[in-house]
Amino acid sequence: MNIIDIINKTKRSIPLTEEEISSLVKKYTFGEIPDHQMSAWLMAVCINGLTEQETFALTIAMRDSGKVVDLDMPLTVDKHSTGGVGDKTSLIIGPVVAACGACAAKMSGRGLGHTGGTIDKLESIKGFRTDLPLYEFRDVLKQTGFSIISQSDELCPADKKIYALRNATGTVDSIPLICASIMSKKLAMNADCLLLDVKYGSGAFMKTQEDARKLANLMEKIGTFAGKKCQAVITDMNTPLGNNIGNALEVKEAVELLQGKTKGRLYDVCMELAAYMLQLAGKGTISQCRTMAEEAISSGKALDVLRRTIRLHGGNECICDDVSLLPQAEFSYKVKATEDIKIVSFNTEELGMTSLLLGAGRLEKSDRLDPSAGIVMNCEAGDVLSAGDVIMTLYSSFCSDFSDAAVRALNAVEFLSIEIPSYT
Amino acid sequence: MNIIDIINKTKRSIPLTEEEISSLVKKYTFGEIPDHQMSAWLMAVCINGLTEQETFALTIAMRDSGKVVDLDMPLTVDKHSTGGVGDKTSLIIGPVVAACGACAAKMSGRGLGHTGGTIDKLESIKGFRTDLPLYEFRDVLKQTGFSIISQSDELCPADKKIYALRNATGTVDSIPLICASIMSKKLAMNADCLLLDVKYGSGAFMKTQEDARKLANLMEKIGTFAGKKCQAVITDMNTPLGNNIGNALEVKEAVELLQGKTKGRLYDVCMELAAYMLQLAGKGTISQCRTMAEEAISSGKALDVLRRTIRLHGGNECICDDVSLLPQAEFSYKVKATEDIKIVSFNTEELGMTSLLLGAGRLEKSDRLDPSAGIVMNCEAGDVLSAGDVIMTLYSSFCSDFSDAAVRALNAVEFLSIEIPSYT
Repeated sequence: MNIIDIINKTKRSIPLTEEEISSLVKKYTFGEIPDHQMSAWLMAVCINGLTEQETFALTIAMRDSGKVVDLDMPLTVDKHSTGGVGDKTSLIIGPVVAACGACAAKMSGRGLGHTGGTIDKLESIKGFRTDLPLYEFRDVLKQTGFSIISQSDELCPADKKIYALRNATGTVDSIPLICASIMSKKLAMNADCLLLDVKYGSGAFMKTQEDARKLANLMEKIGTFAGKKCQAVITDMNTPLGNNIGNALEVKEAVELLQGKTKGRLYDVCMELAAYMLQLAGKGTISQCRTMAEEAISSGKALDVLRRTIRLHGGNECICDDVSLLPQAEFSYKVKATEDIKIVSFNTEELGMTSLLLGAGRLEKSDRLDPSAGIVMNCEAGDVLSAGDVIMTLYSSFCSDFSDAAVRALNAVEFLSIEIPSYT
Repeated sequence: MNIIDIINKTKRSIPLTEEEISSLVKKYTFGEIPDHQMSAWLMAVCINGLTEQETFALTIAMRDSGKVVDLDMPLTVDKHSTGGVGDKTSLIIGPVVAACGACAAKMSGRGLGHTGGTIDKLESIKGFRTDLPLYEFRDVLKQTGFSIISQSDELCPADKKIYALRNATGTVDSIPLICASIMSKKLAMNADCLLLDVKYGSGAFMKTQEDARKLANLMEKIGTFAGKKCQAVITDMNTPLGNNIGNALEVKEAVELLQGKTKGRLYDVCMELAAYMLQLAGKGTISQCRTMAEEAISSGKALDVLRRTIRLHGGNECICDDVSLLPQAEFSYKVKATEDIKIVSFNTEELGMTSLLLGAGRLEKSDRLDPSAGIVMNCEAGDVLSAGDVIMTLYSSFCSDFSDAAVRALNAVEFLSIEIPSYT
């Protein structure tokens, strides 16, 4: 079966066999199929879709394009979040789950576009090494139950190559392709249990709840087919998760939450996700697991896991007790209400892009990051502010001129003017 | 508007503007858009189609990627046939039309796969130059009213590049892309009148009459939009046109027809197409034009046009009086009926592939041709043959072993065994 026949089948919505998909992925990874043929096939997939069987075969073929990790630990749990603005849940849930006796093993990515990446966040901790070899990764897991490393080139090389091509050819927004990309990496990581956190809304890749549900169902099926304990949850990303956006700022918020200092929506989402993960790992009913997760925070055990993990990764663990040791921005700017307003909502994607402008993210893979840059929100949807009240504070060490970022930040806020009623 | 936005629009069936299409074609031709992005767009077109306005804009953008010929002659007519097996109509109709006072100017292609190319056929005439520069081409037209040259690199470079990419990416079978490819070349050739002969059936690119009609209608519209007198006709290619398939063999058949020696289906098709072309050129009603065309043959005037055109192209014009001066195959093989049979039909595509096997065609663009190779059919659908009767004769100078070709040739014949009824 040659590549033109394979392209023609997908173009005509005729399902491919497992062998055809496996040969396609292998040959593309080895450079035997050129980019222009692969991109034609990817476009056919974008428009016509793939069956569940084809998506499963694609996921497995991509997993098998590289190494599959042997975690060599019981009760390993992994979580995937489909990218979001201000999503620091991995930094919180991993330590919580580990403190409760499961093993949270995670491989994470860097930020691109308006969404952040956990690896960038961890690297804002001075000395923190995200590129541990697998044997050191396993060692950290054995000692603390929690470790996150950056994506290894040994895992899923096919995904790396296909993702770069999709990015360049308008073939990103396909549920089967997104599913295969995520799940191949998760299956190569090879944890026993998988929690799939699919976000939707303006700050997420999936703009609608319907698409998020489709992706969640498909990922859950593929994970289960592959023999994993799998659960998918849907999370609203129409408002940022927590108040802070930006690398060091998000680590700070995560540490403060683990210190027991903050509650609110971020706390609730983290406790819910942690409870699901512990349940998957067989730690009890969902309510028992929720109680365990809360105790891991109130007892300080989760913070201790984070402290020891940071130390083993070569990072400065003192940030767990003094967040002022994290990178601090040289410049800041308060975005204020110019009149009396009521906050209606935030455009999370725009907040992400503002944060990128400040230096916290990348437009191109090669862009340099400012770990101190970002945004701290000072209000929530529904809040009423007076003229002069601070809506959010912008931080940057790259640039002291906040005029562009401030305009963009204000654009991300939908509000109503509150006028004093005039009686005639 | 960047290329990803353009790809995304077509992926989502949002029509592109004229400017977007023109910029896409320009940038691709100049190498500013890489193959993998163009092939993703082409696949989106294959699946989602283009509107008539988009197809027109694409055709014009492709035409304008190179030179547009100034034919500098009145009453110029051009004909396009959408490829077929054994289609030598251009060699007959051109001289006929020229003999009737119109000017038949044509740029033609080489054969690829199972279909032949007029340029290959002409090059089987010793000395015939198909690569005349445009000024010599115009000179031949002025003197004889008929000339055919090979596609110039100066015309439609965008089409050349896009066609090669389509061929490599499973994006050939799209009616708007086929239409734009054909019509851009015809519009660059710039004759006043255009006859579009769309073939369908096993030997043609369009397998069904419905697709042929769609393509014909679309081409007629695009030609008319562009200010040409345009007429499209649909021709059945379920049986080969004439008895001969192969380069010199087809020239021989064309010359014999112009000598007035043959009638039958090939003669009828040629007279009909010639009449349409003369009518487009304003030479009279269709029946007047048909009579003129027949007289051009019976008077020998059309053969004389061919003779003078061959001479001006540097070819041996004596073949017009003695077809045995054309290349003769060293080897031949008669495919015979092994029992009493009735011929039901031919698979024209298979006959084309058999002829290719014998050396008359190319699988790859770089394949070398045997001008003498091909097939002469000895029967038609409906004929009844006795065991031992010749079905067809295979010719080749490349190879004396006809076993593979004979098997393939027999596969192309659908027949019924005629059994002598047995009475018990």
